[in-house]
Amino acid sequence: MTQVAIIGAAGLSGLELIRICSRHPGVELVAVSSARYAGQAVGEAFPELSRVDLTFTPHDAALNGAQAAFLAVPNQASLEIVPGLLEQGLRVIDLSGVFRLRDVPRFEKFYHLQHTAAAALREAVFGLPEVYRERIPAARLVANPGCYATGALLGLLPLGELTARLTAPPVIDAKSGVSGAGGRVEDESTLFMAVSENFKAYKVFTHQHTPEIEQVLADATPYDPARQGPVVFTPHLLPIARGIFSTIYLRFDRPVSRSAMWTAYGDFAAREPFVILLPDGHSAELSMVRGTNDCVISLHADETGANWVVATVIDNLVKGAAGNAVQNLNLMFGMEETAGLA
Amino acid sequence: MTQVAIIGAAGLSGLELIRICSRHPGVELVAVSSARYAGQAVGEAFPELSRVDLTFTPHDAALNGAQAAFLAVPNQASLEIVPGLLEQGLRVIDLSGVFRLRDVPRFEKFYHLQHTAAAALREAVFGLPEVYRERIPAARLVANPGCYATGALLGLLPLGELTARLTAPPVIDAKSGVSGAGGRVEDESTLFMAVSENFKAYKVFTHQHTPEIEQVLADATPYDPARQGPVVFTPHLLPIARGIFSTIYLRFDRPVSRSAMWTAYGDFAAREPFVILLPDGHSAELSMVRGTNDCVISLHADETGANWVVATVIDNLVKGAAGNAVQNLNLMFGMEETAGLA
Amino acid sequence: MTQVAIIGAAGLSGLELIRICSRHPGVELVAVSSARYAGQAVGEAFPELSRVDLTFTPHDAALNGAQAAFLAVPNQASLEIVPGLLEQGLRVIDLSGVFRLRDVPRFEKFYHLQHTAAAALREAVFGLPEVYRERIPAARLVANPGCYATGALLGLLPLGELTARLTAPPVIDAKSGVSGAGGRVEDESTLFMAVSENFKAYKVFTHQHTPEIEQVLADATPYDPARQGPVVFTPHLLPIARGIFSTIYLRFDRPVSRSAMWTAYGDFAAREPFVILLPDGHSAELSMVRGTNDCVISLHADETGANWVVATVIDNLVKGAAGNAVQNLNLMFGMEETAGLA
Amino acid sequence: MTQVAIIGAAGLSGLELIRICSRHPGVELVAVSSARYAGQAVGEAFPELSRVDLTFTPHDAALNGAQAAFLAVPNQASLEIVPGLLEQGLRVIDLSGVFRLRDVPRFEKFYHLQHTAAAALREAVFGLPEVYRERIPAARLVANPGCYATGALLGLLPLGELTARLTAPPVIDAKSGVSGAGGRVEDESTLFMAVSENFKAYKVFTHQHTPEIEQVLADATPYDPARQGPVVFTPHLLPIARGIFSTIYLRFDRPVSRSAMWTAYGDFAAREPFVILLPDGHSAELSMVRGTNDCVISLHADETGANWVVATVIDNLVKGAAGNAVQNLNLMFGMEETAGLA
Repeated sequence: MTQVAIIGAAGLSGLELIRICSRHPGVELVAVSSARYAGQAVGEAFPELSRVDLTFTPHDAALNGAQAAFLAVPNQASLEIVPGLLEQGLRVIDLSGVFRLRDVPRFEKFYHLQHTAAAALREAVFGLPEVYRERIPAARLVANPGCYATGALLGLLPLGELTARLTAPPVIDAKSGVSGAGGRVEDESTLFMAVSENFKAYKVFTHQHTPEIEQVLADATPYDPARQGPVVFTPHLLPIARGIFSTIYLRFDRPVSRSAMWTAYGDFAAREPFVILLPDGHSAELSMVRGTNDCVISLHADETGANWVVATVIDNLVKGAAGNAVQNLNLMFGMEETAGLA
Repeated sequence: MTQVAIIGAAGLSGLELIRICSRHPGVELVAVSSARYAGQAVGEAFPELSRVDLTFTPHDAALNGAQAAFLAVPNQASLEIVPGLLEQGLRVIDLSGVFRLRDVPRFEKFYHLQHTAAAALREAVFGLPEVYRERIPAARLVANPGCYATGALLGLLPLGELTARLTAPPVIDAKSGVSGAGGRVEDESTLFMAVSENFKAYKVFTHQHTPEIEQVLADATPYDPARQGPVVFTPHLLPIARGIFSTIYLRFDRPVSRSAMWTAYGDFAAREPFVILLPDGHSAELSMVRGTNDCVISLHADETGANWVVATVIDNLVKGAAGNAVQNLNLMFGMEETAGLA
Repeated sequence: MTQVAIIGAAGLSGLELIRICSRHPGVELVAVSSARYAGQAVGEAFPELSRVDLTFTPHDAALNGAQAAFLAVPNQASLEIVPGLLEQGLRVIDLSGVFRLRDVPRFEKFYHLQHTAAAALREAVFGLPEVYRERIPAARLVANPGCYATGALLGLLPLGELTARLTAPPVIDAKSGVSGAGGRVEDESTLFMAVSENFKAYKVFTHQHTPEIEQVLADATPYDPARQGPVVFTPHLLPIARGIFSTIYLRFDRPVSRSAMWTAYGDFAAREPFVILLPDGHSAELSMVRGTNDCVISLHADETGANWVVATVIDNLVKGAAGNAVQNLNLMFGMEETAGLA
Repeated sequence: MTQVAIIGAAGLSGLELIRICSRHPGVELVAVSSARYAGQAVGEAFPELSRVDLTFTPHDAALNGAQAAFLAVPNQASLEIVPGLLEQGLRVIDLSGVFRLRDVPRFEKFYHLQHTAAAALREAVFGLPEVYRERIPAARLVANPGCYATGALLGLLPLGELTARLTAPPVIDAKSGVSGAGGRVEDESTLFMAVSENFKAYKVFTHQHTPEIEQVLADATPYDPARQGPVVFTPHLLPIARGIFSTIYLRFDRPVSRSAMWTAYGDFAAREPFVILLPDGHSAELSMVRGTNDCVISLHADETGANWVVATVIDNLVKGAAGNAVQNLNLMFGMEETAGLA
């Protein structure tokens, strides 16, 4: 059994981590922290978790012998806490955005934050198993990907060499449930009256997951932003609790055949335990992944075959956050990659 | 044309007042105030109201010659502002709760607030036209009813003499959309993640509209709380924006015939411009009143005829707030009672 | 491992049964049937269940060696199918309403259906473990309770002897998500446009779960409908997917103390694995039970202590259907009562 | 007063037409038809319209002296009914799709329907006042635009000459509330359980509003699909009742300055009574247009200025259907263009 702590366990991602870990056959949850609920039993604060026999501690409490820690705290807090955890010998899976971008100036531009943990950043491994599976097992610090980045990347990565043939940058039109936008924060934009029966775009051309998408795409495919143009990404807020739907527009130099596309995406899905490709004629929808660690993909061509739409769906709190983090834990501690997640 | 000001015009009730007044054939809107938006054009802050050619002022700005003012501000602010307005010679329709209860100790118990405007309270008329229509035209200060009280009372008042035969207090199980619970306030309980796909009761046995229901019921019917027991009222929060559904349980000493009930409620509906009684076999639902000043009522008997359920629906922002307030304005200034509302 | 079949596996309850059984450590799912999807792989029809390696069969296909069958089909179909299954030696947990009421004329009145399986009915055990736990292990046929009945009964049963002191029948005002009203049926009343931003009562005084509540209450408590009046029950439709909230109004002959109530309900919760009593001052809400087999209860007294409100919440697809059915299976086959459910 | 009939008055667009017409100062509603509700009073079938004193007739009933008819019936029915109405001397505003596309083979391909009213089609004027305002006053038959087409076109038309500089076809990612997808039809895809907490794309690359967008864009701008590629359009289904949000991606040959864009869109908004352009830094959202005939537009540039996002919002039942139809009626009968709509 791997002894695990969750720091920031009462936020949306933290609660999802508790839920998954408490049913995971190889994990023993030894500590959960929350600034707000410190001192309260988990089941008292959240009756739906009343079978979890732990009490929230403050963030700086001892971690009770944990070997690994999930961090689900704000960006600035992660910068401050992670170096100390590494020093104590813990292995860390960080769900914030601060250890994802290798390019510090780019990070500081998109996050409006100074990076104060350069050493930790240098050793961080980007925690998208579909690309970095070989490096994760040895990592001390894994940067769990942003939810939008995961939804977009799992729709683009299967293209592989085909990305070289794009004549326009991919356009990613993403729609997220409220939990992906920090649902428990006291933010007027997430009030019921502001979200329900409404829909809007936000951070157009400025969202911090954009450089993340480009960094990984450049690592894994021949896509060249300098020549083909930077990725276009627009996040929108859906009046639902969970899920990210990404509509990805691809424009190729000449037609790509159905068989070429289904082969590329089918091969990817065949080797990935959490990627499901729908057959021709079917369309991905959010209900297909609610509560699961899966990414479901559907493919759609125009008459010419030069324009394609790739649709991907994930649960932003599972594959987009807690589930993917546990997938990383499994890889780091030599467990079955799907343990606790299938 | 009646010159009208709205103080607290950028809250939910205030915006609804702007909407109704800007289409009202007998009203000229001369001033709208908002602490938060002071200095901004209405259409800039709320593009859906871009045809309203006014700029928000601070609450204490001059009222530009207004003859009447709607107040849609918090309870404490109403206590402070109303006496000054009356002194300036304005006629006031107050949407807060502070001028509704004649019994000051009762008020202070339910509102946790000291009453500092006793003189104004003494002259206030309760603004439910269905009961106090004769007194409203001469009033200087009208206390617009609470939304829950209106939904409950319009389902109970038609009983008239029949209330004497209730062998148990009426049970009012009410369900309100979020706007009835102060939707734009930064309150964690009205976050999308807290409301959506959820349902809960709140303030069970302690809600401040309870004494309002009892006061009006005692004024208008032979109902005797001392003998029959105090009204039982439970508010709940629905995951919708607007509307209050009240399920009212009546238990009579002996069967009441269908014809007696439909006569009692039918007579009431026939003389009230905003009360609609459904025929036997039909059920009220919230969609029937969305955006209207109507109260729709349906009646349901058990096999014995001694137990009845009365269901009422109103739009809490219209008949439960702004629409009813304009109905009062119409009565106060000798306009057609339905002007601007049908 | 218990070999289990699900007949009617593609409806809402059926899918929930698949979900629970596929993670249950003591259950092997050997057959799933669906008239509509017969011949399709489960994961093809429902990508979110793509890890379930089974293909839907027609209802009358061989059950592949199953020892037990869950039936989640319409009432008439259960009447026709159950006797044959019993004859084949299977043990059956039926989720329809046709084996719940011992009083056949009462059944026929509320269900508008002739009862054609009298022998099966005679041996059926009502599957509410909180009352009939001793009889379920030996049963061949278990009638899983109605979702509304479970929500109401778990709020009333803890009263025990206190029911004798009720001076009015309990009023149960229940609010259910759409899945409790047959969400996938092509019924205009469950269209998005008919449900969203709406709320309504239905089947007032005529819902078929009413006699079920009375039958069990009479079995387990001194409550006497003849003297105290028949239970008053009103179902309403909430614009959410899952969950039943029951607001139960109790009126006692004289005050009942807080300690008496918390003792009665606390004892009940202490011996029941799926009943959680909230501490004084807390309120039950649907989010506390979503996806779980729990019933969470909160208690609320008026100033006198003679009027109480009991609020209960369950997930109608879990404790109100599939989860409770698996709890019955566990009891029938000597497994841990909570296996696969906690 | 213009005497008006509504054929197909009990569908979503028809009910919205009743609502608008019944408050329109220059319109007298003389007949409303509905196959389903024929014989019922409007207020009996729809209590929220109880002030409309008309009874539904069958579609083929006499039109009671109407000068103009709105048609809100399915495509095939419009093909059959319109020629007869024109013959009787009525002027017709048709809300179906069958008189919008001049190119009959293209129509038949996208609508899977044979066109049997060629003469009527030849004289039909496309009812988008923002483009065809000069021709509408003399038209006998106006084809009211598709809701998606209106949302997309109002975001593209202001570009004018700038369309010549697009180096990729515009990508229109559109999201519609359920009422835009035929909300009262008994269609499983619009059940609450299928829509709520879900999101999906549909008819990718095959939606019938695509050729409509191209036809009008070619009429009004130098955009050349042959050279620049056909418009890419993807509709999605939002879990809300009303509203269409269109995210439009534009890629220019070289940077377009902020001032050039705001001038182009600002000029358009200045001359159009129902188009509102938001200032730089603001984002369009659906709540800004709910219940109004407005289209609100926001503009967003990337750092280079070569990539722009245009966001437009309309209420699909008002500017996307009934409101725009009344705007056409106003033009046809010499009334103020905004009468009944502001």
